[in-house]
Amino acid sequence: MTVPARIKIKKLLSSEATEQQANVKGWVRTKRGGKPVFFIALNDGSTINNIQIVADPEVISENIIKDITTGAAISVVGKVVASQGAGQSVEILAENIEVLGKADPEKYPLQPKKHSMEFMREKAHLRMRSSTFSAVFRIRHAMAFAIHQFFHEKGFYNLHTPIITANDAEGAGETFHVTNFDLDKIPMTDDGKVDYKQDFFGKETNLTVSGQLEGELSAMALGEIYTFGPTFRAENSNTTRHLAEFWMVEPEMAFYDLNDNMNLAEEMLKYVVKYALENCKEDLDFLANRADEEDKQKPQNERQEMGLLERLQFILDNDFEKVSYTDAIEILRNSKPNKKKKFNYIIEGWGADLQSEHERFLVEKHFKKPVILFDYPKDIKAFYMRQNDDDKTVGAMDILFPGIGEIVGGSQREERLDKLTQRMREMDIPEDELWWYLDTRKFGTAPHSGFGLGFERLMLFVTGMGNIRDVIPFPRTPDNAEF
Amino acid sequence: MTVPARIKIKKLLSSEATEQQANVKGWVRTKRGGKPVFFIALNDGSTINNIQIVADPEVISENIIKDITTGAAISVVGKVVASQGAGQSVEILAENIEVLGKADPEKYPLQPKKHSMEFMREKAHLRMRSSTFSAVFRIRHAMAFAIHQFFHEKGFYNLHTPIITANDAEGAGETFHVTNFDLDKIPMTDDGKVDYKQDFFGKETNLTVSGQLEGELSAMALGEIYTFGPTFRAENSNTTRHLAEFWMVEPEMAFYDLNDNMNLAEEMLKYVVKYALENCKEDLDFLANRADEEDKQKPQNERQEMGLLERLQFILDNDFEKVSYTDAIEILRNSKPNKKKKFNYIIEGWGADLQSEHERFLVEKHFKKPVILFDYPKDIKAFYMRQNDDDKTVGAMDILFPGIGEIVGGSQREERLDKLTQRMREMDIPEDELWWYLDTRKFGTAPHSGFGLGFERLMLFVTGMGNIRDVIPFPRTPDNAEF
Repeated sequence: MTVPARIKIKKLLSSEATEQQANVKGWVRTKRGGKPVFFIALNDGSTINNIQIVADPEVISENIIKDITTGAAISVVGKVVASQGAGQSVEILAENIEVLGKADPEKYPLQPKKHSMEFMREKAHLRMRSSTFSAVFRIRHAMAFAIHQFFHEKGFYNLHTPIITANDAEGAGETFHVTNFDLDKIPMTDDGKVDYKQDFFGKETNLTVSGQLEGELSAMALGEIYTFGPTFRAENSNTTRHLAEFWMVEPEMAFYDLNDNMNLAEEMLKYVVKYALENCKEDLDFLANRADEEDKQKPQNERQEMGLLERLQFILDNDFEKVSYTDAIEILRNSKPNKKKKFNYIIEGWGADLQSEHERFLVEKHFKKPVILFDYPKDIKAFYMRQNDDDKTVGAMDILFPGIGEIVGGSQREERLDKLTQRMREMDIPEDELWWYLDTRKFGTAPHSGFGLGFERLMLFVTGMGNIRDVIPFPRTPDNAEF
Repeated sequence: MTVPARIKIKKLLSSEATEQQANVKGWVRTKRGGKPVFFIALNDGSTINNIQIVADPEVISENIIKDITTGAAISVVGKVVASQGAGQSVEILAENIEVLGKADPEKYPLQPKKHSMEFMREKAHLRMRSSTFSAVFRIRHAMAFAIHQFFHEKGFYNLHTPIITANDAEGAGETFHVTNFDLDKIPMTDDGKVDYKQDFFGKETNLTVSGQLEGELSAMALGEIYTFGPTFRAENSNTTRHLAEFWMVEPEMAFYDLNDNMNLAEEMLKYVVKYALENCKEDLDFLANRADEEDKQKPQNERQEMGLLERLQFILDNDFEKVSYTDAIEILRNSKPNKKKKFNYIIEGWGADLQSEHERFLVEKHFKKPVILFDYPKDIKAFYMRQNDDDKTVGAMDILFPGIGEIVGGSQREERLDKLTQRMREMDIPEDELWWYLDTRKFGTAPHSGFGLGFERLMLFVTGMGNIRDVIPFPRTPDNAEF
């Protein structure tokens, strides 16, 4: 008997061909039955669906069957037949099963029962073998690919900005130091300072917090670029929303004003959400059910306004509402929850920094649409944002989504050298460290814009997962760099 | 007059539409003429080709024209007409020109003359405005996209492995330390060691040298994955081939043996080279001419065997030759350059580590094909490679390309727990740090394989550039972390 080439389970399940031989390989999810046959649910990661293997003890020896336990890797050769069971088109009548790798039932952690998310995080090296996490990480791939495809189709160039850098893009946030020194033998100068001249790069370096500034350099040459890479914050925040290492998507575009920027971001978000709905249906259905179940455990007032699929469709069905910060403050100030002091942070007036509760109110209660806020007070925004003529606001924009608040933040960049350096002085940003950034304003400056999308923030929105540690394969958080 | 929407120069040059109004924006490459009209070469990064702007001093005021110098950003509205000049289909008769940003000719560094590559590296924030570097970075985008598309089409999932890690995948190569400590106030334990418990992650951490080990974890759940991310080496090598920060592509596949692995790598390399030839023709033609010119400056014996386009076609036209390491050693030992002692490193016999000169000899002189060497001595390879029955070799493979030597290195991974731990003990790899890696061999282990492609190595091959610092936007090397 010649063994047929291995076929992936996704492909086999979507084919109608029966009565043929097939070879599938994967990991056992469950084994049940026994009389007269065993039913094995096998998964190979290509789809959330398992293929059912029917193993007749008259055909498959007892020795083999006893090793077919949850977590074991097996290779099955058999005949594909129309399935008798509900919810599956075909199954395989096993003719031969090889156990590639056993999984001792006494020790394998992912036995088929409910595990806490905390437990699964401790088993991050195995959790992708569960339905929930395999779905999440297949969707993560799909969202990454959709982003590359979106920008590629529009003529943007993917730019790899440096991870190790000597600048701290925003002057905000704590950075991780990168050094080649032995930490127990740091060389010092005569006046008692760290002698960075002896370090690998001859100066103090850290992990990037953003590729934006380098992105701007390239946009001012190639026109339209985007970065998609890791960024870092050394903030000691143990929350469901913070990671020390996370991925950012940062497009920068020459000749775009703030309005062009807002339109591009809306187009991108609709593109990737549509991509998910069209390409990840089975995984999304699974996660939507999961989210519904989870929601039911919560008190009424903490439940989501919409289900997962409804929230995704909401993005596609609505034009994003563009509202100035100033108008938004008026709406919030006069809102019921503000007057009744239901907000944790009461909006007193112009100048306030908006919290997630305010953002969600605007989206979910007031406009019932995704919202783009623009023209923020310059004092709560970064030095590189373009100053408006009112001398109070800058051309910034944030996009707000239901359930999640801010998902995108961007701005038109200040292209005027004098305005930029003046603002840098006001904010104590050292000009000499950013000489190369200022050069773009000295030589052939032009209006340009860009924004940042926190990729894990998008992942939370698209998957409905509640904790950011569950949408990145191996999360980095305070006291945790395992795997 | 309503101003038409801006059109990118690439799109305009590829259209036949004339006698229409158009608006283009970009950076001035050159301005020449004057009587009776000025000719401005304008580039916006969308293509290596400039659009010619014809500016009649009777239409465009002298004040404007004097500011149109190399490097200035301008916006041009005018009529698109068939071009009189050779090598261009259309040009624009300017009706209105706005200078968005001047570039003082006394100060703008990239004046239209020949600059050294070293000079251009010092101006990495501006060098993408040159033809050479804009071509290189457009191709870099194309190669990145082709890689994502190749794996996506085959059902692989893009996996984001951690950058900050507590393990050193290969036990080889120096790593950069990542810390949140103030370097002048490193906390020490009572016995005089660095107290990593107080550091951000509660342990010693460094920048990753490879995503492979985490990639394997995920392949053993999702089936087929690939990483595409930055990796780091703190090696003090100031060569044309080394970077402290570079990008790697690392696929890992469950149920692949070494032969499957070799076939996949060949298929991938052919796919991306074909993609370049089909999608980057103008940029490649420019770089091929550039490489030819450079080659002519070199002594005869240092010149390339083939031109750039010829080398790319060579990859597509040939089946890769699979040769065992043992056979390759015999070929090299008996080769003319070995016998005549022309190699810098003479091959004495089995066990030798091959140098670039040997790899190139096999590809360029002996087989005249790309070569895949496999089954290397275990003593010169990493602990995780699958041990062959001969007890001498491991299932490793390297792919060798003309002009460049090794471009891909991979192996079948050792899936047998006992063999793996035995090898780890022999090589002093701590088992307790890699407990999660060993778990995949304890629970549902299966044959699997993977390889690594140095993305900049691929870029050198595809662009014909001679220095790795010229194919990454902002290179990181000893004493250099500028921008």
